[in-house]
Amino acid sequence: MKKATLLDIAKAVNVSKTTVSLVLNNKNINVSEKTRKEILDTAKKLNYIPNSLARGLSTKKTNTIGFIVPDIENPYFSEMAKAIEVEAEKLGYSMILCNTLNSVEKEEKNARLLMSKLVDGVIICPIGEKSNSINMLKINDVPFVVLDRKIIGEKIINGVFCDNKYGIKLGIDYLIKNNKKSIGFIGGKREGREVDPRLTYFCEVANQYGILKKEIIFEEEISLIGGIMGTEKILKTENKVDAIFYSSDIMAIGGIKSLMRKDISIPKDISILGYDNIGICSYIEPELTTIGQPIYEMGKESLNLLIDIINSNASNGKEIILKPYIVERQTVK
Amino acid sequence: MKKATLLDIAKAVNVSKTTVSLVLNNKNINVSEKTRKEILDTAKKLNYIPNSLARGLSTKKTNTIGFIVPDIENPYFSEMAKAIEVEAEKLGYSMILCNTLNSVEKEEKNARLLMSKLVDGVIICPIGEKSNSINMLKINDVPFVVLDRKIIGEKIINGVFCDNKYGIKLGIDYLIKNNKKSIGFIGGKREGREVDPRLTYFCEVANQYGILKKEIIFEEEISLIGGIMGTEKILKTENKVDAIFYSSDIMAIGGIKSLMRKDISIPKDISILGYDNIGICSYIEPELTTIGQPIYEMGKESLNLLIDIINSNASNGKEIILKPYIVERQTVK
Repeated sequence: MKKATLLDIAKAVNVSKTTVSLVLNNKNINVSEKTRKEILDTAKKLNYIPNSLARGLSTKKTNTIGFIVPDIENPYFSEMAKAIEVEAEKLGYSMILCNTLNSVEKEEKNARLLMSKLVDGVIICPIGEKSNSINMLKINDVPFVVLDRKIIGEKIINGVFCDNKYGIKLGIDYLIKNNKKSIGFIGGKREGREVDPRLTYFCEVANQYGILKKEIIFEEEISLIGGIMGTEKILKTENKVDAIFYSSDIMAIGGIKSLMRKDISIPKDISILGYDNIGICSYIEPELTTIGQPIYEMGKESLNLLIDIINSNASNGKEIILKPYIVERQTVK
Repeated sequence: MKKATLLDIAKAVNVSKTTVSLVLNNKNINVSEKTRKEILDTAKKLNYIPNSLARGLSTKKTNTIGFIVPDIENPYFSEMAKAIEVEAEKLGYSMILCNTLNSVEKEEKNARLLMSKLVDGVIICPIGEKSNSINMLKINDVPFVVLDRKIIGEKIINGVFCDNKYGIKLGIDYLIKNNKKSIGFIGGKREGREVDPRLTYFCEVANQYGILKKEIIFEEEISLIGGIMGTEKILKTENKVDAIFYSSDIMAIGGIKSLMRKDISIPKDISILGYDNIGICSYIEPELTTIGQPIYEMGKESLNLLIDIINSNASNGKEIILKPYIVERQTVK
C-alpha cells in the first residue's frame, strides 16, 4: 500500500486538494462541519502523514519541542521529562527527548540534531561545562530555555532554576529544630567542575550558626556507592554525629544502607536528610525525609516559558527561581 | 548572526559550493586532506547545520532512530532507552525518544511524529492493546522492531522479547531449592488487557509441581501500592506462607515495605522474589533477589535488529527471545 496523499483524501471526500490542505492545516475556510469532519476522518483512515518539513516551511511551526537531558536513567530527569511531556500535550505540542550521556560532544550533536529536525524550541538541562550547544542555539535563533543547571560564564539566558541556598538553609533549620547539632554533610563530586554549590552553602550557613564541623564534611561521587563511602568516612572520625545531610537522595539512600548494615538505627541513633525528592524516597524503608525540589513545577514552568518565547511573549533573560520545601517522612526525628 | 550556508563555507575556504557539499556529505571527491579538513573545520566554526530533510532526500538516510516507550518514568524503560542510545551511538546513529504515557492515542501520534521527522527506523515498546501505530509503520514502509511486549493479534513481526515462562519456572525452581513450598504470587493487573502471562505461567508450573495454592494468588496494580495491597491480602488468609513471588520488582518492593512494617523478618520469616531486576533492587535494604531480565541486551539486540532491517540484511518476522536469569541478593534464604 502506498503513502496517502492530499489528492487521495480530496478524491475520497469529493472536494478540492486545496480544501483538504486548508482543513488539515486548520486554516480559516468556509466548509461545513460535516465536510471538515469527513476530511479529518478520511485522513485518519488513510493514515495520511503530513510532511512536517513541508508544513514547517509554510506555517513556520512544527508543534514539537526538544528536551535535552544529561542522563535519562537518573529518575530526577525522567520525572522532569514526564512533566514536560504531560504539559506539552495539554498545549498541543509533542516532545522529543535526547540524552547526552553527560558528554559535551554528544550535547552538541543533540542540539544540532534537534535543530535539523526543525523543532520549535528546545529545553536543555546542560551538563554544566562550557559547551558549544547554547551558542549554536543562539546563532540559529532557536528559542530555548535552560533548566536546572546554570552554565558557567553564561549570563543573560532564559532559565528555570531552584534556589539551592534556600533549600540548604531549610534543611539545616529543620535539623536544628529537631535538636541535631553535630551535622555531617556529603556533597557531590563533579569531575572537572566547580565545587558542589550545595556543599558551599552548607558550610556558609553552618558557619553562621556556629555549628560547622569540617571533619565530618566530605565530597563523594553522586551515586549509591558515593553515599556509602562518605558515610563510612564520617563514622570513622571520632565525632559523635546526630544527623547526616546529603546533597542528593541517591547518596542518602547509600547512607541508609551503610548505617543499616552496621545496625545503627535510623532515626533513633542518626537522622538522615536527603535532597531532591525523587520517587525512590518512598520506596525504601524507613522512607527518606528530604528537601523536595518541585520537579513537576520545574518541568511545567520551563515548558510554559519556552512556549512564551516561541510565541514572542517573553523578553530575553527571564529567570524563574523556584523554592524547595521540606518533605517530612521517617528518617529525621 | 545569521545562519551559515554552504556558500559561506565555500567563500571562507575558497572552493566551490559543490565541493563543500560533497565533502560535508562524505561523497567521493578528489580534494586534498588539507582542504577536506579545512572545510569540516570551517563548517564547525560557523556552526553550519545541515538540513536533515534535504540531506535525507539525497542520501535517503537521516542516521536517526526513534524509540517509543509507554512511560519513561518507569526505570525498566529508562534503562532500556539508555542501552539503545549507547549502542546507537557506537554505530553512528542518534536516538530520539517519545513517551506514550500509556495512551493508545498518544502512541499513534508519536508514530506519526517520528515518521514525519523522517527517522530511518523505529523501536517501539507497545502498550499492548491493538493500536493503529504498527499498521501505520507498516504501510509507510518504516523499518521497525517491537520490543518487550507482544501485540495481541499481531503475528509476523520483527521483535525482541524475553522468555517469561522460562523466567517463572526459574523462580519456582529456585524457591523450591531453598525449601519453600507454600508460595504466594502477585500478578500485575492491566486494565482492559489479557491476564498477566507471568501469573498464568506461575499457575501452570506450580500445578505441575503439585504446589499450587489458589488462595494465596492475587492480581494487583503494577505499583508500590499494588504490592502492598496484594501482600496484605496474602497475610490475611489462614495460610502459612514461606515465600512470595511478585510479577514485578516494583510490587516486590511494596511487599517488603509491608512486611517490614509488620516486623516480619525477610528472609527469615518470609522470602521475597521479584521480577525484572531494575536498578532500585540494590538500593533497598535487604537487597532484592529477583529474576533478571537482560535489559541492556534487550535494548542492544533491538537496535542491532533494527539497523539490520534498515540495511535490508534481515528477513521479516525475526523474533529474538532472550533468557532471564536469577539474581541472588538478600531476600531469599
